[in-house]
Amino acid sequence: MSEQRLNRQFDFLNEADRLKSVLRATTLNDGARRENSAEHSWHIALYALAMAEHATRPVNTDRVIRMLLIHDLVEIDAGDAPIHGDHDPKEQAAREQAAADRLFGLLPPDQGGPLRALWEEFEAAQSDDAIFAKSIDRVQPVMSNLCSGGRSWIDYDVTAAQIETRVGAKVSRGAPAVWAHLKDRIAAWFATDAGRDPGA
Amino acid sequence: MSEQRLNRQFDFLNEADRLKSVLRATTLNDGARRENSAEHSWHIALYALAMAEHATRPVNTDRVIRMLLIHDLVEIDAGDAPIHGDHDPKEQAAREQAAADRLFGLLPPDQGGPLRALWEEFEAAQSDDAIFAKSIDRVQPVMSNLCSGGRSWIDYDVTAAQIETRVGAKVSRGAPAVWAHLKDRIAAWFATDAGRDPGA
Repeated sequence: MSEQRLNRQFDFLNEADRLKSVLRATTLNDGARRENSAEHSWHIALYALAMAEHATRPVNTDRVIRMLLIHDLVEIDAGDAPIHGDHDPKEQAAREQAAADRLFGLLPPDQGGPLRALWEEFEAAQSDDAIFAKSIDRVQPVMSNLCSGGRSWIDYDVTAAQIETRVGAKVSRGAPAVWAHLKDRIAAWFATDAGRDPGA
Repeated sequence: MSEQRLNRQFDFLNEADRLKSVLRATTLNDGARRENSAEHSWHIALYALAMAEHATRPVNTDRVIRMLLIHDLVEIDAGDAPIHGDHDPKEQAAREQAAADRLFGLLPPDQGGPLRALWEEFEAAQSDDAIFAKSIDRVQPVMSNLCSGGRSWIDYDVTAAQIETRVGAKVSRGAPAVWAHLKDRIAAWFATDAGRDPGA
């Protein structure tokens, strides 16, 4: 019994290893290379640990951390869909549902079921925990851009207005003080030469 | 007030980003490249989530996850000390204490203090949570070796007896069923041509 469970748990953990090879649009803060989704997931779990006090409504930090640890696993099959990229949201959602079936299905059902439900809760972005988790997921790439000289903003030819719509709306919903802190720094970058014409 | 706290929290999170550039002895499961300590920390947090039922004594899984998320941060200043490598444990411990002073000291004291204490608890390996966390930290590199054809065992010319002493003792202390599961697979690898003479 324990052997069977261990085999399934290791199958899941070995599949999870592949998230280390899924590259995101954003770079490390020093711009040296693109970040992968596994190290990103670690980083935002740490963000949640450090910044939970700024959530709009009180959150269960440990639930948020669990949510963030698993939030990108579906990318192993479905790939990363950069927020400033060009993809069909319906097709991407279908790919992610199939990925969730397969990946959480590797675990014993009493474990895979609750993790799948936690991922669905994150995706739905309705609970206080999920709203905060989603906001944190958007903050870290902003900070990466502020530190790296706007690397992915330049690559994707992003405008200040797009940041406001795609990032600001979500971050201010879940962590308003964090957005208030960031928006002046973002505006300052978009007022630089690189920021005035990011696609140049 | 909130601004000051946010500045300190971002300072900490931006320093933490550097853990993505600390390379470990072990590779990804597919052997494509060496793993870094940030993605390793993510992976073992997921290990804790999937394998807490195998702990010797009941653990608080969420505390274990927090512990594992921060357990390697000191490597940003002190570097990784591979378990099969050649380093002076006293010098390494002194470097890690200085690193902990600096890194946890970036956060507001009401946050940095408890995280520092959690890291000390991990290092001391006396509490049930820390004993389990330490065992999990040893399991993941074993699995990486089993999947990658013994990559870091070959690089470090490791023997089956050294695995028993350096890994088996710790894993069987914190997660005996996991060690019982792994030891046959490890013995099988060391019975292959590569395993009989890993330094060849």
